Amino acid sequence: MPGPADLPILSGLRIVELSAFVAAPLGGAALAALGADVIRVDPPGGGIDIDRWPLHRGRSLYWAGLNQGKRSVVIDTRSEAGQRQVAGLIAAPGEGGGIVLTNLPVKKWSSYAELSKLRRDLIMVIITGDRDGGTAVDYTVNAALGFPWLTGPESHEGPVNHVLPAWDGMTGFLAALAILAAERHRRLHGEGQLVELSLSDVGLAMAGHLGLIGEAILEAEPRGRFGNDVYGTFGRDFGTRDRRRVMVLALTPRQWAGLGEATGLARDFVALESRAGADFRNEGDRWIHRKPLCELLDAWFARHDLAEVRKAFDEHGVLWGPYQTTKQLVTEDPRASAANPMFAQVEHPGLGSFLTAGSPLRFGATAPVPPRPAPALGEHTDEVLREFGLLP
Amino acid sequence: MPGPADLPILSGLRIVELSAFVAAPLGGAALAALGADVIRVDPPGGGIDIDRWPLHRGRSLYWAGLNQGKRSVVIDTRSEAGQRQVAGLIAAPGEGGGIVLTNLPVKKWSSYAELSKLRRDLIMVIITGDRDGGTAVDYTVNAALGFPWLTGPESHEGPVNHVLPAWDGMTGFLAALAILAAERHRRLHGEGQLVELSLSDVGLAMAGHLGLIGEAILEAEPRGRFGNDVYGTFGRDFGTRDRRRVMVLALTPRQWAGLGEATGLARDFVALESRAGADFRNEGDRWIHRKPLCELLDAWFARHDLAEVRKAFDEHGVLWGPYQTTKQLVTEDPRASAANPMFAQVEHPGLGSFLTAGSPLRFGATAPVPPRPAPALGEHTDEVLREFGLLP
Repeated sequence: MPGPADLPILSGLRIVELSAFVAAPLGGAALAALGADVIRVDPPGGGIDIDRWPLHRGRSLYWAGLNQGKRSVVIDTRSEAGQRQVAGLIAAPGEGGGIVLTNLPVKKWSSYAELSKLRRDLIMVIITGDRDGGTAVDYTVNAALGFPWLTGPESHEGPVNHVLPAWDGMTGFLAALAILAAERHRRLHGEGQLVELSLSDVGLAMAGHLGLIGEAILEAEPRGRFGNDVYGTFGRDFGTRDRRRVMVLALTPRQWAGLGEATGLARDFVALESRAGADFRNEGDRWIHRKPLCELLDAWFARHDLAEVRKAFDEHGVLWGPYQTTKQLVTEDPRASAANPMFAQVEHPGLGSFLTAGSPLRFGATAPVPPRPAPALGEHTDEVLREFGLLP
Repeated sequence: MPGPADLPILSGLRIVELSAFVAAPLGGAALAALGADVIRVDPPGGGIDIDRWPLHRGRSLYWAGLNQGKRSVVIDTRSEAGQRQVAGLIAAPGEGGGIVLTNLPVKKWSSYAELSKLRRDLIMVIITGDRDGGTAVDYTVNAALGFPWLTGPESHEGPVNHVLPAWDGMTGFLAALAILAAERHRRLHGEGQLVELSLSDVGLAMAGHLGLIGEAILEAEPRGRFGNDVYGTFGRDFGTRDRRRVMVLALTPRQWAGLGEATGLARDFVALESRAGADFRNEGDRWIHRKPLCELLDAWFARHDLAEVRKAFDEHGVLWGPYQTTKQLVTEDPRASAANPMFAQVEHPGLGSFLTAGSPLRFGATAPVPPRPAPALGEHTDEVLREFGLLP
């Protein structure tokens, strides 16, 4: 008989996902990658995100990525019979069941009030755009938070959007965390609950954690746009002789010393320090005097190829890394290869075989879940309806 | 006697945090905001992040934001006595204790092997830069993943860094999730475990979920840089007559129809559709023909002020939002005001009183935790050492 060490960390949990796009699917995928049984329910033909770009051979790599490891069930909830099936699936018995995750508009039949009549200890996590349920998505939330005015070349006049939907990402992982927190409470006290979170509240809370809200309130003139410089410390991109770019930081006095040693510029740094009356062991001073410091470094990088930079920097414990295109990432970086045990070569229906990640979380005492593809749309409809006695 | 509904969702959990900068402190802050007792341990004078910018009156708003709601203990772990105190604190008895979260280099005394001798069911979550323990931070991970070549103005030649440390954010929330997953396992099976995750694996897994890894492997020429356009659908920034910028998207056919109605451009869109042989209900077609579409919209926006845009767009269900500076965010946006129940006016020692967020997660059946400031450094040293019988 298998013991707990032979099972994945979240085995026994079952989550029904009514979702589209990023936040809820990602939260579900994160739980599935840890062994939860995540059942995504879609309408016939698929949800609004079924064909979302990027595509390969006309099929969505995005859908395939965000729904890895789930079961897919297709049910038409325009009919009452379909609504009853989905509600029955959500409320199906089982200690680890009775959990629903959604970022779709909630209808009467799919509301917490109705579903909790079918299962009193229901856990329901609802992700919205704005807190009041108003429509907002990652890109409008990001625009509101001020980041686009802080991002991009100093000389640029307009806002610069992020490409990574970072708010969706954080919201998805927090929604997954919310499920585990509510399930802990249910296990201890026997009761379920409704949990709500919004993309905009996640963004606002994060802006608060990073000090940006306090800064905007307390400072007459909050920070501006500083290009690729990392605010308040030493960090910027540099160009090498062989036309590569590298990101270099010195967040600690030791890293700063390493940079001086690796480049042979330590004495120039000290000379600058005494001219300016600064102490570069202090990151504020490194920030204030970044321009002359970067000029010294710019000249050094222009005389060295990436390979030389790598050798010198790794020897001296410099905090740095090369910029890579996504193509360079998958062809040159061993972290994005089968040498990284997080990855495996996985066959994705209709897309082909490619390097696919499992969970980035490594639990020492429980079994890992091998990377899995997304299901084909509706692949598990019959299996799931049969399993839960929901066939008409 | 207070029942479970009177307590916060994570009451009873105790986490000792050995940390600095963003990822681990954020994970701890997220758990503290849900009622866990999070005890951050720092060396005398504070950790490497104690003075991290942004500052106000010379004090760190960053530290204040990332350590909200924790208890602060100062112990010098250069001495064996200090090491024994911290180890004793980590291993202190109690069902919800025996949990440690760290993103600092692990020493022999603070290793899982040593600490789990003191408490067999110890849960330890270790965040590293690279999977192999190599040094990497948010900005070097982001450089490696390819996002800086996809971000920023199309005409720009170099990489564009993000300002938001998005990988730190996601890693911190995943570390918090890992604690709850491991604690569930401990509750079910009585055993603790070591959990490891790295910033670079989190970034790689996310790039996989978004389809970027598959795209880079399968497509001969993966996507390039598209400025503020949202790849593969309709979304871009526009400038209004009164020189504001707005982010506008149409992710669904309904949002696309709303945009045509709100601007009165529906007929122009249809004319363009028939000239081009396109169907703008399909987001791929909206993407392919975005240039002529945006020209029509650019001209419309140039004739309308933000207030007019707001009225027309909200009436027609357009998905949009204004760009705001952080100053505009805190002065103009009701979501970043005391009208949002996530926020409260909080007095922060040495910084003053300002709007401060609690958790963005709202649990319906348990008590919310009011927004709290970060502790003063070492504020709880005596209290905590006394509570756990660790005074010399």
